[in-house]
Amino acid sequence: MTTKKRITLREVAEAVGVHVSTVSRALGPNTRHLINSDVVEQVIRASRQMDYRRHAAAYSLKTNRTKTVGVIVPDITNAIFPPMIRGIEDSLSTAGYLAIVGNTDGDNERERTLLDTLVGRGIDGLILASVERKDDVFDLAASESIPIVTVNRRPDRDSVHSIVHDESEGVRRALTHLVSLGHRRIAMIAGPQTLSTGAERYAAFVQSRSSLNLDSDESLVAFAQAYNESAGEHCVEELIAAGHTFTAILCANDRLAVGALAALSRRNLICPKDVSVTGYNDMPMVDRIDPPLTTIRIQQYRMGFEAGSMLQKLMNGESPAQVVVLPVELVIRSSTARVLDGR
Amino acid sequence: MTTKKRITLREVAEAVGVHVSTVSRALGPNTRHLINSDVVEQVIRASRQMDYRRHAAAYSLKTNRTKTVGVIVPDITNAIFPPMIRGIEDSLSTAGYLAIVGNTDGDNERERTLLDTLVGRGIDGLILASVERKDDVFDLAASESIPIVTVNRRPDRDSVHSIVHDESEGVRRALTHLVSLGHRRIAMIAGPQTLSTGAERYAAFVQSRSSLNLDSDESLVAFAQAYNESAGEHCVEELIAAGHTFTAILCANDRLAVGALAALSRRNLICPKDVSVTGYNDMPMVDRIDPPLTTIRIQQYRMGFEAGSMLQKLMNGESPAQVVVLPVELVIRSSTARVLDGR
Repeated sequence: MTTKKRITLREVAEAVGVHVSTVSRALGPNTRHLINSDVVEQVIRASRQMDYRRHAAAYSLKTNRTKTVGVIVPDITNAIFPPMIRGIEDSLSTAGYLAIVGNTDGDNERERTLLDTLVGRGIDGLILASVERKDDVFDLAASESIPIVTVNRRPDRDSVHSIVHDESEGVRRALTHLVSLGHRRIAMIAGPQTLSTGAERYAAFVQSRSSLNLDSDESLVAFAQAYNESAGEHCVEELIAAGHTFTAILCANDRLAVGALAALSRRNLICPKDVSVTGYNDMPMVDRIDPPLTTIRIQQYRMGFEAGSMLQKLMNGESPAQVVVLPVELVIRSSTARVLDGR
Repeated sequence: MTTKKRITLREVAEAVGVHVSTVSRALGPNTRHLINSDVVEQVIRASRQMDYRRHAAAYSLKTNRTKTVGVIVPDITNAIFPPMIRGIEDSLSTAGYLAIVGNTDGDNERERTLLDTLVGRGIDGLILASVERKDDVFDLAASESIPIVTVNRRPDRDSVHSIVHDESEGVRRALTHLVSLGHRRIAMIAGPQTLSTGAERYAAFVQSRSSLNLDSDESLVAFAQAYNESAGEHCVEELIAAGHTFTAILCANDRLAVGALAALSRRNLICPKDVSVTGYNDMPMVDRIDPPLTTIRIQQYRMGFEAGSMLQKLMNGESPAQVVVLPVELVIRSSTARVLDGR
């Protein structure tokens, strides 16, 4: 396969019979007024006829800007990320930026390679949805002096620009909802404690449990190694096998809750009659599963859009807010019900 | 925000006290053997200390290759695309290619802008999951002499490299399954006829209906304007409102089937007792909905991986197969059941 030769600015200049710099100015929206309008018209006509396109690489070498933003997500197959990516793209595209999306699959080595490739290509900014609380890759990216915004999660260090959600409020609402239905023995499937969402949701559970006067029974907390269905299943199996009794499970995300439902069903426990279950995120399809999931709704698209806007401000040398905390809401569906008498 | 100045090859050469071309060769895995190994070591040490990175834009200008592939999907929030994108990335990354993913949202104007941006940046190849049967944007891309592979869908023209599935076999299996359960009045929700999947699945329905000796009742076919839940709902409402009776609905994809289930439930029709429903794609979560969906499983990850491999062959000037047709399988779950006596 051969690639058609690219038309250069010089060839356009020769065709019109003017200097290269004249062509360059005539094609630039901000410099066009410097050139006689007849010449501008001739240049534009010729460049269209010859199918001239500004060469991105040449532009990049000259301006040291690529108009490209790297976006790193932990797992594109997790249903909360596609709407977030759409938000990022919609925000960036208004300013002519292109988003390059890469997945790390939760793999640190893969994340490092991805970052290296992106930096090597000269991205103007970076949006990280994959960041851990202690994150070598974040430190590396920060040392490159590239503007960075983290989204959905944040690392344990100061001066990081982030878009996150009000995790305490989300957990408090889910737990208050369960208590209002008469539940007292409430288990938690906590997320990975290496991630800010995992740590903050667990801390909020401990705090709300105390302010709602529930027993501080740590044996009712199981820690998932990852935010996925099989980890949720595994945690519920663990709680049941250890002989713990509970009437409700608060899960640190929807995928854990989907796994919890599968484990309960395998043990012939019916949700919500025997055990109520809550999720977190309100990812697509959890309103259609059996039973439709009561969950905390985060703003998937909006967090992406806000991250794109914050990054644009940073790339323009402006000073946006350090951290934007988005509100969440409780969505009550059929996976939670009043506790049966006598339990 | 300031960007750290990039170290150039020349600066590394000065630091070591050798010619620029020596540094370039010492850093290239394929040219390293040409240089004295002590010098190679010195150059590598210095480039690490100085944090030299090959400048992608400079490399691109010199070689006219960017090692970047554009991937255009119609809608990243459709759950079949994330696994496909993963397959594309996994295949391309083995050869050092980076995938730039963009969504068109089914919008022709947006697709054209995206393509223009990608071509302006000098991509080496293009994978299109968004292609329509008559597709201006495809024609435009093809005229750029960029290697192109279409995946999941194909345009109505010759000499296009594509990875697709065996649509006829998928529809034949779903219909045969329904007939084996005693169904004779089988409705179809067909996909958009502007897409190859929509047209091929509908044509296969017409053909299989005839070979299975079912009535050729066109009033039992509703055409969806888009592959989404609300179009599925709308089509079922339409069929019911027109007074048509049927005991099963074959849907051209899972999202249409999810919408069909919602419409049936609103009409107090129980699936599968009153009406059986089949989907197409086996997208994530349809095994967890109520009822779990009987569907045709396509190879979401593999079609992406194969598209990446085919594109690599094209970019290397090799001649891969024109079209690869992947097999599908029937997955029987709980949304289909034997038709009740007397219907």
